[in-house]
Amino acid sequence: MPEYAVVGKSLPRVDGEEKVTGQAQFTSDLKIAALLHVRLVLSPYANARIVSIDTSEAEKVPGVIGVYRASDLPFVEPDSGSRKRDFMARDRVLYHGHPVVCVVAETGAAAEDAVGLVDVDYDPQDAAVDLLLSLEPGSPLARGEKPVEASAEAAMHGGGASGETEEHEELPANVSSNLHFTRGDIDAVLAASDVVVQNTYRTPMVHQAYMEPQVAAVTIDALGELTVYTSTQAIFYTRNEICAALGLPNSKVKVVSMTIGGGFGGKFMLIEALAAAVAVKTGRNVLLEYTRMDDFLAANPAPPSVWEVKLGAKKDGTITAMQAKVIFDTGAYAGSPLSIGSLLLGASYNYEAIDIRGYEVLTNKTPAGAYRGPGAVQAAFASESTVDMLAEKLGMDPFELRQKNGATEGTLRPNNVPWPKIGLAQCMTELEGHYRALVAKKQDHGTIREGVGVALGGWPGGLEPSTAICRLDADGTVSIVLGSVDLSGTDTSFKQIAAETFGLTPAQVNIVRGDSSNAPYAGGAGGSKTLYTVGLAVQRAAEDAKQQALQIAAGMLETGVDDLEIVEGVVRVKGVPGKQTTLDKIGALSMGPGAKQEPVYGRGSSAQANQSPAFAAHTTRVAVDTETGKVKILDYIAVQDVGFAINPAEVDGQIVGGIVQGIGQALYEKMDYDETGQITTQSFLDYAIPSAGHAPTIQAIQVEVASDWGPFGAKGVGEPPLIPCMPAIANAIADAVGIRPTSVPILPMDILAGIAALETNGKH
Amino acid sequence: MPEYAVVGKSLPRVDGEEKVTGQAQFTSDLKIAALLHVRLVLSPYANARIVSIDTSEAEKVPGVIGVYRASDLPFVEPDSGSRKRDFMARDRVLYHGHPVVCVVAETGAAAEDAVGLVDVDYDPQDAAVDLLLSLEPGSPLARGEKPVEASAEAAMHGGGASGETEEHEELPANVSSNLHFTRGDIDAVLAASDVVVQNTYRTPMVHQAYMEPQVAAVTIDALGELTVYTSTQAIFYTRNEICAALGLPNSKVKVVSMTIGGGFGGKFMLIEALAAAVAVKTGRNVLLEYTRMDDFLAANPAPPSVWEVKLGAKKDGTITAMQAKVIFDTGAYAGSPLSIGSLLLGASYNYEAIDIRGYEVLTNKTPAGAYRGPGAVQAAFASESTVDMLAEKLGMDPFELRQKNGATEGTLRPNNVPWPKIGLAQCMTELEGHYRALVAKKQDHGTIREGVGVALGGWPGGLEPSTAICRLDADGTVSIVLGSVDLSGTDTSFKQIAAETFGLTPAQVNIVRGDSSNAPYAGGAGGSKTLYTVGLAVQRAAEDAKQQALQIAAGMLETGVDDLEIVEGVVRVKGVPGKQTTLDKIGALSMGPGAKQEPVYGRGSSAQANQSPAFAAHTTRVAVDTETGKVKILDYIAVQDVGFAINPAEVDGQIVGGIVQGIGQALYEKMDYDETGQITTQSFLDYAIPSAGHAPTIQAIQVEVASDWGPFGAKGVGEPPLIPCMPAIANAIADAVGIRPTSVPILPMDILAGIAALETNGKH
Repeated sequence: MPEYAVVGKSLPRVDGEEKVTGQAQFTSDLKIAALLHVRLVLSPYANARIVSIDTSEAEKVPGVIGVYRASDLPFVEPDSGSRKRDFMARDRVLYHGHPVVCVVAETGAAAEDAVGLVDVDYDPQDAAVDLLLSLEPGSPLARGEKPVEASAEAAMHGGGASGETEEHEELPANVSSNLHFTRGDIDAVLAASDVVVQNTYRTPMVHQAYMEPQVAAVTIDALGELTVYTSTQAIFYTRNEICAALGLPNSKVKVVSMTIGGGFGGKFMLIEALAAAVAVKTGRNVLLEYTRMDDFLAANPAPPSVWEVKLGAKKDGTITAMQAKVIFDTGAYAGSPLSIGSLLLGASYNYEAIDIRGYEVLTNKTPAGAYRGPGAVQAAFASESTVDMLAEKLGMDPFELRQKNGATEGTLRPNNVPWPKIGLAQCMTELEGHYRALVAKKQDHGTIREGVGVALGGWPGGLEPSTAICRLDADGTVSIVLGSVDLSGTDTSFKQIAAETFGLTPAQVNIVRGDSSNAPYAGGAGGSKTLYTVGLAVQRAAEDAKQQALQIAAGMLETGVDDLEIVEGVVRVKGVPGKQTTLDKIGALSMGPGAKQEPVYGRGSSAQANQSPAFAAHTTRVAVDTETGKVKILDYIAVQDVGFAINPAEVDGQIVGGIVQGIGQALYEKMDYDETGQITTQSFLDYAIPSAGHAPTIQAIQVEVASDWGPFGAKGVGEPPLIPCMPAIANAIADAVGIRPTSVPILPMDILAGIAALETNGKH
Repeated sequence: MPEYAVVGKSLPRVDGEEKVTGQAQFTSDLKIAALLHVRLVLSPYANARIVSIDTSEAEKVPGVIGVYRASDLPFVEPDSGSRKRDFMARDRVLYHGHPVVCVVAETGAAAEDAVGLVDVDYDPQDAAVDLLLSLEPGSPLARGEKPVEASAEAAMHGGGASGETEEHEELPANVSSNLHFTRGDIDAVLAASDVVVQNTYRTPMVHQAYMEPQVAAVTIDALGELTVYTSTQAIFYTRNEICAALGLPNSKVKVVSMTIGGGFGGKFMLIEALAAAVAVKTGRNVLLEYTRMDDFLAANPAPPSVWEVKLGAKKDGTITAMQAKVIFDTGAYAGSPLSIGSLLLGASYNYEAIDIRGYEVLTNKTPAGAYRGPGAVQAAFASESTVDMLAEKLGMDPFELRQKNGATEGTLRPNNVPWPKIGLAQCMTELEGHYRALVAKKQDHGTIREGVGVALGGWPGGLEPSTAICRLDADGTVSIVLGSVDLSGTDTSFKQIAAETFGLTPAQVNIVRGDSSNAPYAGGAGGSKTLYTVGLAVQRAAEDAKQQALQIAAGMLETGVDDLEIVEGVVRVKGVPGKQTTLDKIGALSMGPGAKQEPVYGRGSSAQANQSPAFAAHTTRVAVDTETGKVKILDYIAVQDVGFAINPAEVDGQIVGGIVQGIGQALYEKMDYDETGQITTQSFLDYAIPSAGHAPTIQAIQVEVASDWGPFGAKGVGEPPLIPCMPAIANAIADAVGIRPTSVPILPMDILAGIAALETNGKH
């Protein structure tokens, strides 16, 4: 491996100081003059006709500017069925939390007061709540007669799943989309298998639980031009959606990315068009800031799902077939990760035969959004739990079964597209000793039973074209100009990539961004693609700028470009000590009156054609208290193929953070609905996320199977840490107490019930 | 000439709507939270030691945050002698209006009240006031013992004058710089001339009289990063100067160009570092907004000058020699246009011998700045008046004398550098009929005498590297991203250049800008260089983007790039009707998840190595009332070589506007000082600028001698209209009443005195 000066080092984050000192500017920190505050009246029903709305008392509240229904606002696509372009209810509400009326007032308090005075007369209808019941004939229709749209958003975060076979199948009325992946003769292969196991798994709706609720501030000028300040993960997508919603040309809307207080896939764009519509309606600057309760009721959490999985294998442990049915409950609008989830379900191992059917079901619940590793996290729980069942039935070591069958380069995925080079085997090799050590270490203490689990999973990695700029400045520093959002520390890595490429110290590189009107294009920060795609553009921009600088320096030093090198910002003639110049001198020759050289302005673009999928393998040792059902995680070791770690400390941070979220999903988190479709978890009092005290010490181990395409061999590292987490914990619990968790979160009462059932069945 | 679809047409200005409807955002329109207001205590003396300053009463005014001297503020270059980096007085004041103390308060009114309570004890000194007296031995020293700096700013607006001979000459103590241009044996050539004329001219200090006084708003965040909103003509220069003044890295200061309410050279950077210093000192957002009186006392007006000019000629009208002495009164800091003025003085005609000595003199007056056609305007007055004297003495038609001797390609300038291709002769040819018609038309009416004048002048044109971006957007429009300031309508021309080059309608092109942190580099908007330099970068960026788009389209349409054309945004296969695609489709293939093409992101840079000088020739018919001395302009016809008019209506606007300013300088405008150095013109009550009623109908005629270098053959058009204006009017007055104006403004009382003197001498 080449010796690098800047990449591969754990530099401090560029956004560290402002965040640690509390100076980072979040959207709601903006001081905007003459700001109106918007509060929403949310539907208390999951499915109801709106009979009438009386806003007269609300309008009387001092400071209230207006009380608006959807039809009062300048949305131009009222019947498109797109939630983002028509955020509020019209003639009926479709989920508990569906915004019905927005109150606009000079102060937040006035708006809040007025919200309580809006009188909406609803005609409640039976709601489609449970995803399985919603597939039954005669079940309530979630969307009534409304047409169902296909959503583009799933592709925003997706790992590029495509190629599924589509066939004409008679579908229940609430199904918004379906797919079918097949390979081989599934019935014959299963029949020929020595062992077959099957099980059904459920995952609940979970919330991204970002610290900063959804927020958007919109300023408007007298010519109707809008500037939208938002913690979006994707400024260009948000701009496009706002323009589509309001029928405005792109030139009239500028989206500025603010510091983002956590996104995890949930902030691609949600309330921005509504805030913009209120600004257009009132001609005033507007702040729409969700309360935490708004965010639980009316944001875009990860959707519930059901997975029926059947696996076959030969006696020797060769896995033969997967047959599965995948159902995602997308809530009131389409947009679940059905496609990527179904694809990844059958992608971690070699299968002779595949038969996976997937269904997206509309219900009267909060519509689905993306959440880190969308679809993959749920798929891994189903797949990796069933693989453990197979190991048990085969009497085989679960680690060995995985090693024997794990996907490698060329393994066909369910869409029959082979994996490119992947590092799954290397992760397993690296993990094995740790796994064996945990197994050796586990021991029971009275009613406390210990178990060790292993699980794996991968993420193909998103792709999106992007451009970056590397601009030499008059003081000899360079600025990297970006249109991407720094969701996860990518700015620091970009600084390192630019410094390494150009031959600078990190202090000589500034990271700056533009807004959607003037920045180079970049896709949304999601799908583990920012470093992989924008990072390559940064590398190319820095190389382009370096060549321009060398060209000028060659003239100054009367030598050829090839004889020059740049080290820590000094341009030197190789082998001629002291014959050198500096970048500020090159700046002076290319910027300023009468200067003779063109400014050094490097451009780099990327349109990655190839994914560099990243796998992870986890092992954990847990202790289960058989008297209380409580699970304690004792050890957690994660191995991940990161391609090349531009900044190892940041990659560690991604891994550890992802695992803590995975622990939350495995053991604590669930947005719950009652049978009428009422959300019963409306705050962090009801919705449990892990605190620092719940997080064990996590050992993150980076394996580097270099990507052929990413900058310096790097791969996206954001999604994978979360993917094997739930099944690793579930498998450890199964190992400890002999019960197979089939739904998450794995709650103490479920464990106690499982233990009781085992005892009843005499198996314990 | 090729047929163009968009350039060469008079499209409406892109900034028209927002300006006509009053919606343009000027710096003082910004709504900035928690804003402090700064007011300045200005020196009432031209030259004084500061004995003591008592701020205690001022500090007691409610709302006052601080009362600061220069030494209280974080300037790091207190002894550099740079006015811009150390704007306030330290131990002595150097001019009437020199800021001594700044008062910072929560409201403008509180600051204003406190200003009146600051008690400064001055020890007044004799002041250097008159520029000639200041050259005398023993005259007061304008700067005491302070070192005198060379100023970089003159180069910012300059037409690229350079190459003057410098020699060691014993200089008076107040001289800050000098130059000497020579060619041939001046004494011998003058001695061999048949006719010699000579005269001395004075021009006064004049103010740019922009509608919007100097203003800067600075926001500061808790990490000390500054954003400076200002009506600067040059965002990068301003950023660099602020950083130098405060010792900050470039990355800590961002300059945002606001709508500019007139600049004319006077807004390259003045008060911005002071405003920034106050923001750093207080940690608060700050607005420093000049009153009109502040702007008269403490801005940067055009400097006074004296011109001694001697011309020789042969009997046949061949001009032989110019000997001249040029003195610019730069006020208390160096920075006059001595170099460009001295160069242009001897550049309009062929001279066998040249001997021009130039001196920049420091006095205790408001320091000099640039004003449209700096140096050139004064030089033309001196040169063109003397040429008319020569015509009279030769008994030759003044138009013919100019045609016979006028500079052409290859004519040596005083620095012995030949003119490149110029259009002076073409302008004169175009003007001749108009001049002859005015001469034929003139007639006296009793005490009203009419006269016709002619004059010419040119401007070499500034050069500065620049970069521009042409970005395809998702909706199929393109955005031109710029770091230049739109001072004079250049944005509209850029839109046309981009549309023509790419094959778009103007509506498909957006003009957007970045700030100094993220925009492509561009020089200051001045010196008639923006269209010529940035315009070329725009053309190249659009061509680059077009080629990228064609490459993608070729793949879509399965054809070669060469077979494609873009017409009004539609990419067509030439000769195959209906085989076409659109830019939004190309956008969809290059932006968005999974898109396979790199974003279309064109970059263009320019580093013009060659000037494309632009000449103008004016004629005017005036009526002089011999009883009142009042001058009325009856006809005004201006011919200007514009290379190629990208937008003819805008070019007309430049010409007409420049001439109205020239009429002001010829007849009305003067900043006056008494013998102690007190400014006696402190408002528009004392300082007369022409109103609409003073402006005649002006006929602007465009001649197009295409530049080999500018976009579509365009040349800079901003400075030339003002240059021949004063001498054309002076020559017309001389023609009418037989007196030779030797100073401007040419006031009625001076004309009456001249007429009286003529009558006394029996010449009338």
